Amino acid sequence: MTSQSNTAPTRFVEADGTRFAYRRFGNPLGTPMVLLQHFMGNLDSYDPAITDALAMGREVILTDNAGVGLSTGAAPQTVAGMARDAASLIDALGLEHVDLFGFSMGGYVAQQIAVARPDLVRRLILVGTGPRGGDGMGQLAPDVAALFGKAHDPQDLMWLPIFFSPSETSQAAGRRFLERIRARTEDRDAPVSEATVAAHLAAAREWGAAAQGSFDYLEDTPHPTLVVNGSNDIVVATVNSYILQQNLPDAELILFPDSNHGSHFQFTERFNRYVTDFVDR
Amino acid sequence: MTSQSNTAPTRFVEADGTRFAYRRFGNPLGTPMVLLQHFMGNLDSYDPAITDALAMGREVILTDNAGVGLSTGAAPQTVAGMARDAASLIDALGLEHVDLFGFSMGGYVAQQIAVARPDLVRRLILVGTGPRGGDGMGQLAPDVAALFGKAHDPQDLMWLPIFFSPSETSQAAGRRFLERIRARTEDRDAPVSEATVAAHLAAAREWGAAAQGSFDYLEDTPHPTLVVNGSNDIVVATVNSYILQQNLPDAELILFPDSNHGSHFQFTERFNRYVTDFVDR
Repeated sequence: MTSQSNTAPTRFVEADGTRFAYRRFGNPLGTPMVLLQHFMGNLDSYDPAITDALAMGREVILTDNAGVGLSTGAAPQTVAGMARDAASLIDALGLEHVDLFGFSMGGYVAQQIAVARPDLVRRLILVGTGPRGGDGMGQLAPDVAALFGKAHDPQDLMWLPIFFSPSETSQAAGRRFLERIRARTEDRDAPVSEATVAAHLAAAREWGAAAQGSFDYLEDTPHPTLVVNGSNDIVVATVNSYILQQNLPDAELILFPDSNHGSHFQFTERFNRYVTDFVDR
Repeated sequence: MTSQSNTAPTRFVEADGTRFAYRRFGNPLGTPMVLLQHFMGNLDSYDPAITDALAMGREVILTDNAGVGLSTGAAPQTVAGMARDAASLIDALGLEHVDLFGFSMGGYVAQQIAVARPDLVRRLILVGTGPRGGDGMGQLAPDVAALFGKAHDPQDLMWLPIFFSPSETSQAAGRRFLERIRARTEDRDAPVSEATVAAHLAAAREWGAAAQGSFDYLEDTPHPTLVVNGSNDIVVATVNSYILQQNLPDAELILFPDSNHGSHFQFTERFNRYVTDFVDR
């Protein structure tokens, strides 16, 4: 079967002076799912093994936030700003009710949209992410920060130690993931600029800064939520997924074995089954 | 469809001087699953909504450990002793390789069998349970301990606050659970004796006592494991399920929302699907 993820054209929509890049495909039934990307990722970083499977039962909308890839505009330096931009994009597409799938920084944005625009959101899927002021989230550990700055040839090899555990099984899954995200050959997205990287780093620091009562907003996030992570996430510590589940009123948690920040890229079949079950429930 | 759980005859097997009561039914394909019961539970306390579903793809063997219900013998005062007895029962049934499904104290026993008799075990399902020396496991909180001693009419109403959360949704699920475990009308098991209750309390205290290095055995438990719990287990605190997942080499964790010690009795359909996926994988 042709991968819709690899063939769907990059499209554009104008909102509040920003021209947002997105790809939209799938079965136009039920609630559409909007995907919010991780730090340094763009439209080509969504895993076709996941997005093709999810597209069988709903529309999926892959997004570049403001300042990312082919989207114009300046990347905001706060998650609140990123959430406003992402909500503008969703509004501009004429969508009134969506499921949000946020990975890592995209998970921060998804939570913030749910708080700021609760009626826009039906369900949340939060992967490899954490709450405001979560454990160790104010700053990356120096050895982990170094992984984001290291040069590789090709550069996407950087994701092997960031998304996958050191085990041979996990690294092999990582190499298969890289093949999948390289498979699209035409109409690829543009790399994330240094200015956007800097703005998003500031946004992540602001979101992650420890503060009294920083989890309080979770009580007011009644949306059914699926929280997923790897057993040892070196970017957003796994315990933060547990904290999300413990503080959200209606959240189910799944933690996979022998895995890291990108556990869903490693356990794609299980992950797709869990997510499909969750959104079709 | 007739419930096999409600009609399977109680059977007996002799091992090491103990006559063990059990019920065995299901599809004789693949690896049989042995179920290990919770504190104060007997053969009638396994949920037919779960055991009937699991029996469609394998044999399920519901067990009374030594001193429980219609099983003879004295209940040991240690989990190690309970694990020896349960392994004797499995050996006496001629089973060489089983999946173990342990709930609560049955989960302690399952872990201990995996350590003492690693080759006997293929996979572990650990529900509402925790590791040796886990968080708050040395002693029940006084208000929780009181729930186990309180008189009810009928007595099985005691399980509503122990297994289910205070929400109306969870309590309603609890009432449906009680209907299910009351549905078997003939050939019911005998209640658990006071002597067995006392012995098992001692065993739970010994297992739960905090001690340096008490999680070390988990590293040596390589069996693929599914860990499941409710969001707020008042009997074996939920964090212990997280600790199990973090310390076992190959464990997946599922935590359900708005639930307590008996989350699998509340989310039976999801639970059955997750367990079936896990053992058929």
